[in-house]
Order: sequence, then structure tokens, then C-alpha cells
Amino acid sequence: MSQGVDDIAAGLVSVAKSFHARGWLLGTSGNLSAVVQRQPLQIAMSPSGVDKGELRTDQLLSIDENARILGQQGGKPSDESLLHIRIVKERGAGAVLHTHSIWNTILSDIYARDGGLRIEGYEMLKGLQGVRTHEHAEWLPIVENSQDMPALAETVGETLNKHPTAHGFLLRRHGLYSWGENLAQAKRHIEIFEFLLETIGRTLRIREHAIRENATWL
Amino acid sequence: MSQGVDDIAAGLVSVAKSFHARGWLLGTSGNLSAVVQRQPLQIAMSPSGVDKGELRTDQLLSIDENARILGQQGGKPSDESLLHIRIVKERGAGAVLHTHSIWNTILSDIYARDGGLRIEGYEMLKGLQGVRTHEHAEWLPIVENSQDMPALAETVGETLNKHPTAHGFLLRRHGLYSWGENLAQAKRHIEIFEFLLETIGRTLRIREHAIRENATWL
Amino acid sequence: MSQGVDDIAAGLVSVAKSFHARGWLLGTSGNLSAVVQRQPLQIAMSPSGVDKGELRTDQLLSIDENARILGQQGGKPSDESLLHIRIVKERGAGAVLHTHSIWNTILSDIYARDGGLRIEGYEMLKGLQGVRTHEHAEWLPIVENSQDMPALAETVGETLNKHPTAHGFLLRRHGLYSWGENLAQAKRHIEIFEFLLETIGRTLRIREHAIRENATWL
Amino acid sequence: MSQGVDDIAAGLVSVAKSFHARGWLLGTSGNLSAVVQRQPLQIAMSPSGVDKGELRTDQLLSIDENARILGQQGGKPSDESLLHIRIVKERGAGAVLHTHSIWNTILSDIYARDGGLRIEGYEMLKGLQGVRTHEHAEWLPIVENSQDMPALAETVGETLNKHPTAHGFLLRRHGLYSWGENLAQAKRHIEIFEFLLETIGRTLRIREHAIRENATWL
Repeated sequence: MSQGVDDIAAGLVSVAKSFHARGWLLGTSGNLSAVVQRQPLQIAMSPSGVDKGELRTDQLLSIDENARILGQQGGKPSDESLLHIRIVKERGAGAVLHTHSIWNTILSDIYARDGGLRIEGYEMLKGLQGVRTHEHAEWLPIVENSQDMPALAETVGETLNKHPTAHGFLLRRHGLYSWGENLAQAKRHIEIFEFLLETIGRTLRIREHAIRENATWL
Repeated sequence: MSQGVDDIAAGLVSVAKSFHARGWLLGTSGNLSAVVQRQPLQIAMSPSGVDKGELRTDQLLSIDENARILGQQGGKPSDESLLHIRIVKERGAGAVLHTHSIWNTILSDIYARDGGLRIEGYEMLKGLQGVRTHEHAEWLPIVENSQDMPALAETVGETLNKHPTAHGFLLRRHGLYSWGENLAQAKRHIEIFEFLLETIGRTLRIREHAIRENATWL
Repeated sequence: MSQGVDDIAAGLVSVAKSFHARGWLLGTSGNLSAVVQRQPLQIAMSPSGVDKGELRTDQLLSIDENARILGQQGGKPSDESLLHIRIVKERGAGAVLHTHSIWNTILSDIYARDGGLRIEGYEMLKGLQGVRTHEHAEWLPIVENSQDMPALAETVGETLNKHPTAHGFLLRRHGLYSWGENLAQAKRHIEIFEFLLETIGRTLRIREHAIRENATWL
Repeated sequence: MSQGVDDIAAGLVSVAKSFHARGWLLGTSGNLSAVVQRQPLQIAMSPSGVDKGELRTDQLLSIDENARILGQQGGKPSDESLLHIRIVKERGAGAVLHTHSIWNTILSDIYARDGGLRIEGYEMLKGLQGVRTHEHAEWLPIVENSQDMPALAETVGETLNKHPTAHGFLLRRHGLYSWGENLAQAKRHIEIFEFLLETIGRTLRIREHAIRENATWL
């Protein structure tokens, strides 16, 4: 990584505060990580149970590829560290972000039966890395929630393999994961998915009106 | 308490500003308290009629277990001091927070007939102290609103006894109470309940659509 | 007035920024005033066409009871100065605030036929000056919008006389007016009305669901 | 232009941060420009792929009338530079702003069949330059989205000619464009359109309720 550890830590804190202000990390929910070193793997990650709106750089944990804390830091690694590590390995991600928003929670439940959600035809999709047109169809997989983290990490790994172009996934009634080559890209992806999920959720309710009224614009 | 009075006061002001910014303490509504000392009981509490977005530490009142002001401070204790004291005693809470949000007001009315609201299956529930899985079912009792504070404190006391594992309750068309061992935990609980109530409120309206359209995802 | 002119000006700017951040004064809409002196009447008021999120104290205008600028200031008085002056005279108000929010715009249209909106049974009503219980019924009159300001000021005067206990009124598809003995009270009243209007607007849509589903909680 | 380059740059950054905070420029979406010089044309513009909440003045690009970068700056011009230039030429605009909001995305789709959206009867319309009364009817054209920027610039040019009094337009499922004689006016216009689009979008869903219930206020 070309970025220093201090820059990475400052970046994670900045994103945490921004997302907490938007209501995407309330109640100490969600977590953020960034790769500090690849060989051997070292990841800077927000600890468990910390208010993301008050996160300080000295609270970030340094963990290895087995989610063990490096050095003699205090703090408890998040239960979901294994998911972050899996995403880093499967996708070569430099940063992984996980948010709990109102709309990602609602849509992760509504579309759970379909196993995912197709997002298509929005200009905002162009902000996902490698996407060149709004005609792109993004499949956002939905994975059943579980407290068995090693098993969930396996399921996530399989989902990532099955959908090699996916830029994120939802855990049912739980939240959104996305990632990027670096923290800026991961932040961009989260903002785009949150925008699109809210747009789709609000549209669901308006279309109902259109159908009943035989609106000209339907 | 291990925290000093100054830290407690600064913490209450910080939470007040954060919640006011989110629209949960508009119009001088709501109140915040934290235990300074247990024997004899001494509580730091926001006064009545103060703008929570402009709260200053020197406006906080110090009250005893009968809601009487200690020392020679100015300011008027909140009408709801008795509820805070009751919660501190019944639950051994170190901090009690009370918010007036749009969604807690709406849901406190919609579910009033049922006497409460069952919240189940959301990952966010894990943020409530002692909850280990999203499969937890939290019962959030709803108490009829009243201006007779001693009587309301009695009803609240009975409700807390009847639901010994509840992490909060709603006053109908009035607001949400939650608490914690300390201020950070109480803040976390409020953020979680506000998140879940908004999620449930918004889901109610989307399901209506699903039912009518026989949506595949219903 | 016990407050100095500088304090009044700083207070108006602070409220303007807070309300602009909430989206209640977008696009240079809305206006704010406070009485500096009663005999002869002198009012500090936000000028026409200024971004309320960027308001500076040196942009505030000092106007007399005929909405004429005192001294040699630049800036153009708001078209609605006459309404502010009328409210100051009819109610003895020390400050008058006017917001354009999404929800006050929507409800001012929906309830226009009824000539106003009854708000009853909410704890938040207790924040209106002189109200002691949530059982209070507040009538919020709705006045048809007009560009004829002297005529509109007359209609507003009549409305205030007809509803002597009203704490505010709506202009149809235009916005909310409220006031107070001082700026803090006026701000409190606006926050309360905006909260209640949003609560009522969102409840309208949920009740629809309840009626169709014969929900137990209806 | 009477404003210096530094003032223009600082102004663009300030508007970018304000709109990003409101969720109108998430995920590096949207763009902002202001005319620095007319003969020959020189425009200061936000670059492609930059987080608008973190925009710095030294990231702004200086481009000519063919969207070529002037001097030896780094950074990539936005794909939509041609649209900004076209608007500057057709309307004599001093600043052009383009936002991606939830509500402008939704309404740009719902009303696409009609080729635009009529907005009438709202006091907020008076904030659009030259509008004197809420009885004004503003036609907000909707243009189909495309990735062929020269072709899209042509369509936009034709749309502007066909609707010479329009203060903005929507790109379908993409976003809103508005402009002004200077940046302050362009910002005002965006805030007004975003307010009105959200108001109309939320009203659509409430009217549905009214129709079914034969509400007295319909």
C-alpha cells in the first residue's frame, strides 16, 4: 500500500463519522476496515462495540488473516472480522465497509426470497468500479443472516464466487457490505448502493399509486 | 461511579446535541440524566424548557431521589424527573434518555392497543445489552400518556417489573425511554430503538403494496 | 427588550443556519425577525433573497412599523415584512419566524378546505406557550396564499383575531408562521409545529394501510 | 466576471459540501461549474470521480469551450462538461449545477412519458429568477439519459431552445440540472427544484389515501 498507517486510520475515522451522521452506523453497528499490508496480511479495523460517531484512530485494531489482534492492543475485534478478511482475499479489496441503514435493512428483507436484487438503468450505477453505462444490470446478492461467523464467512465466499462481478451484498435484515481497491472507492460504492436502495424502496410505494390510478406516466 | 462530574456533564451535552441534530429532541422536548452518586442518590439532569441543541453543562441540574434540586442552582427540574429516578432504581441504570422522534410518536400510537410492540429478527437487536442473536424477540411496552407524574411513575414501575428484560418503553404519542449502565450504553440503546422503529414504520407501508400486488417477495 | 441588538442579531443568524440545515429555509425562502424596540417599533429582520445558510449579522435590516428601512442600510426588505409587523402588533410577539418545509407545504394544501388543522393528543403540544397537557387541541388556521401583501396582512390580522389562542398559522402551499415572546420561544414553537406536521403527514399514509388490513391496532 | 478565480473556487467547494451533506452528490456523482471568463470561454469545474464532500479548490479544473483542460493540470474532466458548456452558451449562465437526489431520480422516471413535469401554485416558485407569483407554471423538461455526450448535448440544446423560460431540466433516472447568472442564483434554483420535487413526490402518495377514503380535504 502506498498510504501510511496514519493516513489509513484517519481515513477510516473520517468515513465512520460521515456514515454515522447519515444514520448508517447507529448504535455502534457496522464496521470498517482497510488493508495495511498484504504479506503477511495486516488489516486496520474498527473494534466491536464502539460508537462510530466518536471513533478515534487509537481505537482501531490491527488484525491478521485469522482475525487475531496483532501486538498488545486493548479492544475486542468485531464478530464480523472474518467476513472482512474473506472479502479482502476473494476480491483483492483494499478496504471493506459495512453499514446498517434503514433502507438496506428493509430491502434486504423484501427481496430475500429472490436471493438478491437487480438494479438497472440508473446513472448512479456508473459510479461502481468498471461500470460504463446506466444500462448496466447490477445483481446485489442477499445472504441469510447468521450468528455462526465461520459458516457465514463460507457462505459469503461462495456468494462472491458465484457472482464474480458483484460490487456488494446484503445480509438479510442486517446490512450492506461493499468494498473497493482503496477506502475512497469503498466509500463511493457504499454511498451509491445506499442511494439506489433508498430510491428503489421509495419507488415501490409510488408505483402502487400509479397502478391504482392508471396514471398516464405508468 | 468512576467518571467525574465534569465528564458526565460533558457527555450529556454531547448526546443532547447529537440527538437534537437528528430531530429527536425538537422544541425543548425530551430529557437526559446520568447518575453521579448512588448513596445517597444524586442525578445530573437536563432542566425543563431548555433547547437541547444549545444545552450547556452549567444548565444541568443536580437532583436527589425525590427530584429536589441539590444546592442553590437556578433552573426548573423536568416534570419527568420522577420517571428517570424510577428507572434508575428499578433497573440500576447509570443513565436514562428520553427522546421525542417522529417515528417513536407514530408507532407508540399505532401499537397502543396491543400494549406494546414486538421487535424480532433484526441484527440491530444485538446492540441491546445482553442480546446475543438477531433471533431475540424484544417486547417494547407502550404506556398510556398522563400528566399525573407520580401516577405515571407508578405505572412505569409496574411495567418495568412486568417486563424485567425490556430495554426501553414508549409513552403513547409522547416518546421513547431507554437507559443503560452508563451514558454510552444508554445512547446506544436509543439509537437502536429509533433505528428499529423507523424501519418497522417504513416497512408497514411497503408491505401494503406487496399484499395488493401479490409480489413474489411477500 | 433586555437583550442587546448584537445578541438579537447573533440569535437570528443562529436560528437561520439551524433551520436551513434542516431544509426549512431552502432557496432563500422564509424569513426571521425580532423586536429590537417597541416605542417606536423597530424590528431586526432578514432581508429578501439571501441564502439563510450563509446569513451574516450585517445583512439584517432594521425596519419600522411600516416596513421601511431605518438608516442607510443596503438590502431589500422581504415582501412579507408586513406580516411580521402585523403579528408583532396583534400578539405582542418579540420574534416571528416563517419556514418553508416539505411537510408544512403538503399539509397546508391537504387541509386547506377545512380552513385549518386540529392537532390534539400529542405530548409535544405542551411545548406551546401556556399549554399544560397533551389533551390540548390546537387549531392551526390555514390562510389562502396571495401576492397582495397589504391584503394578506389584513387576512392574517383577522385570522389572529378569530383564533386568539393560536400559536401559528399556515399559508397554503407556502409555509408556516409562528412566534414567541422572544426568539427562543419562537424557535421552540416552529420546531414543535414542524415535528407535529411531519408526524401527522406520515401517519396519514400509515392509517390507510391499517384501514385496508383491518389491523388490530386501528 | 467581477468575482476573482479564488472566490469562484471557494464558492464551488462550499456548495459541493453543502449539497453532499444533503445527499444530492453521493458517490462522486453530480458536478459543479462556474464561468471564470467569457472571451475566450473559461470555466472552473469539478473533475470526474472526486468525492464532493471532500472537494478541494486545487482539484477544480479550468476548461475551455471544447471541454479541454487549460494549462497543465492533473485530473480528468467530467463526461458531462459538454452539457455545462452548452447551458452556459444557450442561457448565458454564470454557473451550472447538477445534482443526483433520491427525489429527482424518482420523479425523472415517473414523469418521463409526459416529457416533463409541470410545477404550479407553490410559493417556492417565486425563488426562480424572474418569477413573481406562486401562480406561475414552471415546465421542467425531462430528457432521456444517454452515454453519448455530444448527442446528449445536442438534445439538451434543443430542449433549452424549445423551452426558453425553463430554469432547469431532468435527465431520466439520472439527475437535475439548473443554473443561474452566478453561483448563488444557481444554488438557489437547485434548492428550490429539489424542495419542489420532494414535495410533489410525497404528495403523490398522500393523495392516493385521500382518493380511497373520500377525504373531506380532497
